[in-house]
Amino acid sequence: MTMFDLDPVLAGDTADIGMLGLCRVLLMKDSRYPWLILVPQQAALVELGDLARDDRVRLMDEIEAASTALAGLYQPEKINTGTLGNVVRQLHIHIVARNTGDPAWPGPVWGHSPALPYADEALKVRVAELRNALGIDAA
Amino acid sequence: MTMFDLDPVLAGDTADIGMLGLCRVLLMKDSRYPWLILVPQQAALVELGDLARDDRVRLMDEIEAASTALAGLYQPEKINTGTLGNVVRQLHIHIVARNTGDPAWPGPVWGHSPALPYADEALKVRVAELRNALGIDAA
Repeated sequence: MTMFDLDPVLAGDTADIGMLGLCRVLLMKDSRYPWLILVPQQAALVELGDLARDDRVRLMDEIEAASTALAGLYQPEKINTGTLGNVVRQLHIHIVARNTGDPAWPGPVWGHSPALPYADEALKVRVAELRNALGIDAA
Repeated sequence: MTMFDLDPVLAGDTADIGMLGLCRVLLMKDSRYPWLILVPQQAALVELGDLARDDRVRLMDEIEAASTALAGLYQPEKINTGTLGNVVRQLHIHIVARNTGDPAWPGPVWGHSPALPYADEALKVRVAELRNALGIDAA
């Protein structure tokens, strides 16, 4: 088994929420959107099809868990889910809570405009409420 | 069981490929990208979580089938997958074959620029090769 290393761009853009069964859950440091990223903790994944079928099913369950957490906490108008990987190749799945009138609405958030960082306290609150909603213990 | 009706915007923007077990497969009529859309044939779906868990698993398998067909036929640099639904609410999943230097690269295709239609013959060829790769009989 090759060691898993989180892509440094993903690491730099996000705060760590913690682990689900398959994926590390990250929070994008963009205060304009509640935005989670799931990263399956296996080396050398690029496409969804690089996951074994059982792990794709686990991923679908974890996407649903992340979506449910976002919907419960933030009552968004819509959940957007995507896996692009055109810039950061390491397989990662975005789950974003969207609202009418958010900066990118109704277009995609990816590539739209620079992130607006959270204030320190707001980031701590968001990480804590997401850990709680996902049943993840504080690191 | 409520009758399923394909959203008229999706119907207008696409050519019909045919049915997999859960989803209708559509080809976006944009010759710049090999671009499939999966639409689970159930009424009143908006979010992935509106599908029963078994159907989410079937959906993941059909996303993989669509991705494998695109990868085999067109050898793209990357497959992009996304479900947004900010404009067309009916649940639909995009699977797009991307290449370095395509018009939207490396950004998302959604909302980038107007579609460039296929020539009639090119559309027929593409529909036929996709049906063949997906094991779908001609309608």
